[in-house]
This record gives sequence, structure tokens and C-alpha cells, in this order.
Amino acid sequence: MYERKGLFIVLDGMEGSGKTTQIKIAEKLMRSWGYEVVTVREPGGTELGEQLRKLLLAAPLEVRPTPVAEMLLLQASRSQLTDTVIKPALNEGYCVISDRYTLSTYAYQGSGRGWSVAAIKTFGYLVHPITPDLTLVFDLPAQLSMQRVAARGNPDRIESEGLDFFERVRRGYHDYAAQQSSRVKLIDASKDASAVSKAVYRALHGFIRKYESALE
Amino acid sequence: MYERKGLFIVLDGMEGSGKTTQIKIAEKLMRSWGYEVVTVREPGGTELGEQLRKLLLAAPLEVRPTPVAEMLLLQASRSQLTDTVIKPALNEGYCVISDRYTLSTYAYQGSGRGWSVAAIKTFGYLVHPITPDLTLVFDLPAQLSMQRVAARGNPDRIESEGLDFFERVRRGYHDYAAQQSSRVKLIDASKDASAVSKAVYRALHGFIRKYESALE
Repeated sequence: MYERKGLFIVLDGMEGSGKTTQIKIAEKLMRSWGYEVVTVREPGGTELGEQLRKLLLAAPLEVRPTPVAEMLLLQASRSQLTDTVIKPALNEGYCVISDRYTLSTYAYQGSGRGWSVAAIKTFGYLVHPITPDLTLVFDLPAQLSMQRVAARGNPDRIESEGLDFFERVRRGYHDYAAQQSSRVKLIDASKDASAVSKAVYRALHGFIRKYESALE
Repeated sequence: MYERKGLFIVLDGMEGSGKTTQIKIAEKLMRSWGYEVVTVREPGGTELGEQLRKLLLAAPLEVRPTPVAEMLLLQASRSQLTDTVIKPALNEGYCVISDRYTLSTYAYQGSGRGWSVAAIKTFGYLVHPITPDLTLVFDLPAQLSMQRVAARGNPDRIESEGLDFFERVRRGYHDYAAQQSSRVKLIDASKDASAVSKAVYRALHGFIRKYESALE
């Protein structure tokens, strides 16, 4: 087991679930409780990763990665982020909050594109991703997720997938949350932003209370 | 075994070995013998791959991929190239000539950086690279290779490695050529270009004569 001093918290979930807004709120909450926070995102979070993010998401038609290339690029971005940012920050005692991490790969590439868990783990064996202490999954019906993305305009390559794809992705999140219920919490993101923020507060506060009382 | 109609020939080997010049000569020879040729290079050879090549080779300091990220990006480039260019071309009966392929990974990442053959094969299991019908390895003492690269100026990230690294890479090429002697031929690239061209002619001509007589 990888030993670290800091907490690793991941916010994950469906497109259009207000995750970006909630990450800022989670950051503020953690700071208000005395934690020093480093926030990153996937794919991306490093100079290399942000270049890869462009190739993965905003890819013009002629660049479009195949499913295998997509998987390898995601893992490359994760490896760079884990080794050069997340691990050093956790070792120094920072709380790291990540916008997406391994769970996105299980949901999007696994459930969405049909990669087996074994195949994804095979990549993981060289990348050595870190198990988050807590993952909040912003849950939304696939139809509503697509409506919100459409209302936002300019969908990226992943956001342009069909309803079937996002229904599989959502099922993937639900299955994973059910299997890992102590570390993964579903947040109902179909409600308005202030109700979602309250749910984030409750989930983080409950987690931190337990974590800190275990330290005492 | 992957069934294909066309021939797959790889030119591989040390930096500064005159490989680029010899690829043009190999192309002309194959065309003169009636083959339609598609030439590609690694990393690169596709729109995505050329973007990755920039990140891998000309990477400014802040982008520098870790060894794991480097491996994943190389494999992503190979996957995209194999699935979208090499396989379709071979299926249509083209002769595909590639400037570097899997052997470079064994030599540079395996022998050079210390990745195990098992680790490299783990990636290969999803990428499904194609076994070349013939690989010509341009061989050069590490010291001479480095002198030629220095004379050329503007070394890329890989070319900037030290003598030890290139000595390990060269040993990797020798070991692999010894193990696969029916499909991998060493070409002495320390001689002048016309002597090297003659060696390329002899290797290709011998191979094609055997190949065509087996077809009769």
C-alpha cells in the first residue's frame, strides 16, 4: 500500500452535472477546515496532460484517436499527473482534489466503450494510480446530462456520444459506487446547485469528521 | 496470426545511421520490383501520431514525459498507426515500409531505459502490433552514433541521452537480431552511404527473391 500524509479526494460523474462548480465549493470547504489544497483535473493537470487533453477532447476529425489510443493517452496523462503532481503533493501533506480520476476510466472506457476491467487494470499495473480516500460521484439521468451539455453548446468529442453511451456510463458509476460504498458516494446532481452543494457539504463533513476522529 | 496480402518491412537502428536516406533507397528498390509502397514512421505516421511525436521528441523541459508516460505515448502512436494505416494498407496489398517499429521499443525503452520484455509485451497485447516480414537494423558503435548526431546539431530529447544509454540500446539491437536472425538483419552503417546502400540492396533483394519463389 502506498503511504501518504495528505487526503486524496476525487469528484467524478456525468457530463453537465455541475461538477466544476462543486469542485470550487469542495476546495473552499476543505480550506475552511484547515487543509491546504491542490486541485487537478483529468485528463490534464500537467503540461503534458493538458496537451493530451486537447488531443483527446477537442480532437479535429483527422486526429480522432482509436479506442485503444484513447485509453493509452488517458493512462499517459494519469501517469504523468500521478507521478509528478499528486504523489509529491500527498507526500507533503496537501489535500489533493481531482476533477475525475480512475473511476472515469471504468465508467467511460469500461462501461461506455466496453473495455474489460482486466484490460483497464493491465494498464493500471504500470501507471500505479492512487486509491482515493473519498470519491463523490455526481449522478444524473443520461437524458438530462445530454440536455445540459446541449444547452451549454460546443460539445467536445466525448460529450458528442449518444444516449446509449451515457446510459452505460451511468450504470457503470452506479455499479462501482455499490461495490465500493465505503469510499464512493453518489450525489444526486439533478437538483439545483444549492441542494447539490449541501449534499457535497454533508458528504465531505461526514468523511472529515470520521477521518479526524480516527487520527485522535 | 494476422493474415495480410502486403509485405511489411521495417528499417530500424541507431541514431545517425543514415536510416532516413536508406528508407528512400528501399522505397525505390521495392517500386522498381513492382511493389506499390506506403512509407510511414514511428512515432508518428498519423495526424495523432505526429502530434505525439512532437510531445515525445521535441518536448520542452516542462512537458517532459516520465518513462511510463513515454511508453504509453509511444504505444498510443503505434496503435493509431497500426490500426488506421498499416493494417488497411497491408490488406489492400501495399508494401508498407516503416521507419522504426516495435524493435525500437525493445532497444530504447527495454534495453535503454530498463523496461522488461514482459512489461512491453503487456502493452502490446492491446496494441496488437504486426510482426514485420523483414527488419533491417542499421548498426553503429554508440560513440560514432553520438558524434554524427552532434554534427547534425539540435539533438531531440532522445538524441540527448548519454553514451551509456546508446551502448545499452545497441546491445539490445544485437541481442534481438541474434534471436530473430531469420527476420532481422544487421546492416553495418559505419561505412559510407554507397556501401550501406549496397548492403540494403543485397538484404532486400535476397529477401524478395526468396519471398517470390515461395509464392510460385
